[in-house]
Amino acid sequence: MTTLILVRPQLGENIGMVARAMLNCGFEKLSLVDPRDGWPNPAAFPAAAGADHVLKNAAVFNTVDESIAACQHVVATTARKRDMEKPVQFLPDWAETRPATEHTAILFGAEASGLSNEELNLADTLITIPTNPTFPSLNLAQSVYAVCSQIMDRPKAPAPLEHLAPKKELTFFLEALESDLDLTGFFHPAHKKPLMRQNIRNIFSKARLTSQEIQTLHGILKALKK
Amino acid sequence: MTTLILVRPQLGENIGMVARAMLNCGFEKLSLVDPRDGWPNPAAFPAAAGADHVLKNAAVFNTVDESIAACQHVVATTARKRDMEKPVQFLPDWAETRPATEHTAILFGAEASGLSNEELNLADTLITIPTNPTFPSLNLAQSVYAVCSQIMDRPKAPAPLEHLAPKKELTFFLEALESDLDLTGFFHPAHKKPLMRQNIRNIFSKARLTSQEIQTLHGILKALKK
Repeated sequence: MTTLILVRPQLGENIGMVARAMLNCGFEKLSLVDPRDGWPNPAAFPAAAGADHVLKNAAVFNTVDESIAACQHVVATTARKRDMEKPVQFLPDWAETRPATEHTAILFGAEASGLSNEELNLADTLITIPTNPTFPSLNLAQSVYAVCSQIMDRPKAPAPLEHLAPKKELTFFLEALESDLDLTGFFHPAHKKPLMRQNIRNIFSKARLTSQEIQTLHGILKALKK
Repeated sequence: MTTLILVRPQLGENIGMVARAMLNCGFEKLSLVDPRDGWPNPAAFPAAAGADHVLKNAAVFNTVDESIAACQHVVATTARKRDMEKPVQFLPDWAETRPATEHTAILFGAEASGLSNEELNLADTLITIPTNPTFPSLNLAQSVYAVCSQIMDRPKAPAPLEHLAPKKELTFFLEALESDLDLTGFFHPAHKKPLMRQNIRNIFSKARLTSQEIQTLHGILKALKK
């Protein structure tokens, strides 16, 4: 299963065009994080050109974290090079080699601003859509179409089936770790805490952990606290 | 050289979105055959999002025949099976095997009606864009993007930004962690220790850690021991 997630989308018309593009490629699961003009948005429906059920069934969340809680693999699209440790793959290369999971989420940022670095850090994989370097800015629905058309109809990569943990289990572990670290005075000086937190989250999200492995980490944490 | 030709396009906004999608993929030559609302159309420019020169340089013709007069190879897009002698290729198959010519024209029909059989007969090759059979109708700009993105020159692959730590740093951390865990009685029962150790090593080796991240993990370990 693949869920397309629009983060802070602005124009209802664009959300409608996204629904149409998704359904053109056979995808029906749409989530919206904090849509600027609220939801439902009447401007979305005419632009969906008949893909109304995609809009009607769209799930709405307040944060990206909540939107990916049930997903096992999170992919984020980014137009720009970021100062990040994670590698950025070209869409076609990712499409060929993407892991077979039961539930993949694909994040798309807002029309103008894209995804924040913190949001990009929530992803297991960053992808970029090849574009003309002198005119790179794609319409939102075009980006969604680009991704969906690459992964539709393709046989899944012959990678071993991984049973990745749902994101909420990872979040729960990270919160436990951070709360323990808080007690030790680890986050010092205080103004560096957000960056330190982000680095820690990045370490564990890169590991593509299973539920069993997250249990192991809880056990380690408990043991070390003794 | 590749020219994109819109035959009887209706909405100026769609023509603008086509210009944007073309330029996103590095294509600049647009021709219009008998645009419904005349040309230039002021509604096109806002939708082009900066691809104004593509619109300003667009050539306008009365007939498809005139629009392809200077081209050596003509490709027509069609959504539906037609009662025609010519075979229809899937877009990705055509993109891989298309002939090298100096000047290719690609024809796109009007929003609702597509190209007439007579117009399709002018083409050397017919292509169809793979879509969900139960919801196949693509937005005009989406069709143009689908074709252009398949045949564009791909920009250079994004550089990997990974500076992975040498393995000895990972080993040193794992040994420190295991030695701390030994003191806590974590490895219990004793005969399971090799498997538990292996699981832990697996968690951290999957994360593809940088030296900086391993330093962070040392800091976490030290803090938790307090």
